[in-house]
Amino acid sequence: MKKFINKAADFVNEMIQGILAAHPDKVKIVNNDLRCIINAKSYKGKVGIATGGGSGHLPLFLGYVGDGMLDGCSVGGVFQSPSAEQMFEVTKAINQGAGVLYIYGNYGGDIMNFDMAAEMADAEDIKVVSVVAGEDVASSPKGQEGKRRGVAGIFFVYKCAGAAALEMKNLDEVKRIADKAAANVRTMGVALSPCIVPEVGKPSFSIGEDEMELGMGIHGEPGIERGKLKTADETVQIMMDKILEDLPYSSGDEVAVLVNGLGATPKEELYVMYRKIAEILNGKSIKVYKAYLGEYATSMEMAGASISLLKLDGELKSLLAKPANTPFFEQVQLEG
Amino acid sequence: MKKFINKAADFVNEMIQGILAAHPDKVKIVNNDLRCIINAKSYKGKVGIATGGGSGHLPLFLGYVGDGMLDGCSVGGVFQSPSAEQMFEVTKAINQGAGVLYIYGNYGGDIMNFDMAAEMADAEDIKVVSVVAGEDVASSPKGQEGKRRGVAGIFFVYKCAGAAALEMKNLDEVKRIADKAAANVRTMGVALSPCIVPEVGKPSFSIGEDEMELGMGIHGEPGIERGKLKTADETVQIMMDKILEDLPYSSGDEVAVLVNGLGATPKEELYVMYRKIAEILNGKSIKVYKAYLGEYATSMEMAGASISLLKLDGELKSLLAKPANTPFFEQVQLEG
Repeated sequence: MKKFINKAADFVNEMIQGILAAHPDKVKIVNNDLRCIINAKSYKGKVGIATGGGSGHLPLFLGYVGDGMLDGCSVGGVFQSPSAEQMFEVTKAINQGAGVLYIYGNYGGDIMNFDMAAEMADAEDIKVVSVVAGEDVASSPKGQEGKRRGVAGIFFVYKCAGAAALEMKNLDEVKRIADKAAANVRTMGVALSPCIVPEVGKPSFSIGEDEMELGMGIHGEPGIERGKLKTADETVQIMMDKILEDLPYSSGDEVAVLVNGLGATPKEELYVMYRKIAEILNGKSIKVYKAYLGEYATSMEMAGASISLLKLDGELKSLLAKPANTPFFEQVQLEG
Repeated sequence: MKKFINKAADFVNEMIQGILAAHPDKVKIVNNDLRCIINAKSYKGKVGIATGGGSGHLPLFLGYVGDGMLDGCSVGGVFQSPSAEQMFEVTKAINQGAGVLYIYGNYGGDIMNFDMAAEMADAEDIKVVSVVAGEDVASSPKGQEGKRRGVAGIFFVYKCAGAAALEMKNLDEVKRIADKAAANVRTMGVALSPCIVPEVGKPSFSIGEDEMELGMGIHGEPGIERGKLKTADETVQIMMDKILEDLPYSSGDEVAVLVNGLGATPKEELYVMYRKIAEILNGKSIKVYKAYLGEYATSMEMAGASISLLKLDGELKSLLAKPANTPFFEQVQLEG
């Protein structure tokens, strides 16, 4: 296991200590718990937005806590859900009297704990509503969207909802916008190699030296096709066909694109993929408003990538364009 | 060779086509040459800043072309220098009448070609001056700083000089600032695994499953110690000892820190390293103004990291704090 770590059991806490040391102006912890992170700044009367999930996915989840995105986040061990109590502590800390929106991925443990935290908040008269993101088209067929895993596309939900909350929209409005973003995003991933969870010490799955797995999840959940390595263009074509037909995205649509590296995949390769994505979208007269490329939701040192598309309307576009300033994502106001 | 590529020979050009497709508002090419990239915006009377070098290091080199950083860049094949003619084309395109500053790393091929390009520019009455960055303390001992390789620390030179040029300082001033930044930065790297140059098709070097190499360069140049994998804290301690004593950085200094992933190293591990870096600096009463963590100068899918320190004075600090907006690096104005 080749990693820059000390003791495996200390990996997550030491990582968070590093984040706190590097970004003291942006984030802090609450309840003296390293796993409960909130924005260092607060805005009176603003709807609070919280997320949470397992560690090992940086920038997900806690990396998006900051201005114009999220107010708080609780994280668990690597690939493990945080507890309901931790989510509740974050909820209390970010409540500014306007209620709290939970945005999190569609995983059983997270749902159970977030629901419990919402009940605990309700008992203290903090209004909480939830948006569960699940947009991985490879994880469940069309018609069963409710069973889909949440992956990198949740970035778009955070971004649009976060901008709306900073405009001081009320809880119903921020939830409506988060729901709309979540409904208009689709993702598909591909994996080339596994990662190693430090406390496990061995690869999360095995895959042949000449193989790739299309549709694999960010915890190594099975995909839809294991086969010989394809060219970048062939791989992108399969992924885009599946994504485009699903919503569907059609001629005349305007989209934002996210090409996400899973951890070990160089930026060069993401751009080789994007070349083909742009060609496909151009061929279908789907206009790209903004392309994001880099690491947005990873699986530590897994090699692979995912493609996400967000269909924009005027409202989502204007919210996506707003500035953001978090430890892992900075954006100046976009033009157009 | 597990990569998202098509033909190995097309890798660099297709990557650049992807960059142009993703960031048409930020960068464009000149002379109809994909290897000659300039800022899509230009500023009359501004000193132009150009860099160049091999591909395979994204965001280096071309990723920093944009507002507040660089005006132009020429790149070669993977780990290969661009030609003097390409550098000259970029030079002509970014000349706004105030002269052009070359900032590039200390590698033989680049020096030869940039010198030739400067002569070609001189023949057309474009004033060119150069700053050669070389800050890798492991590549040559103290006293022989002129032999040191340029690595991730060049980011700080780009950032400070780029901000100065955008303030419409003249060529002498911008060069003075670039020289000062270059003189105050030190870097050391560590590698865990090699990368594969697509047209070569096999790993750039071999290293045991339980080994690391301290001081290795970003093209796999030999380091100063090959040995058993150490803990993150031990590794950081060795690197920081070497960096701190070199300038030296002393009690009361204020610094910016860059913890750079070489390609396949997860952000989690960079933050585990930063935890120890912050502890060491704190123990020496060296104040951190700003920490940058992520991929700034890579070697494709090489696993490893480098640490760079920039000693700040009031001038460098205020320039570092300025906003920047390039395809691979965005920063809002820093506080303090």
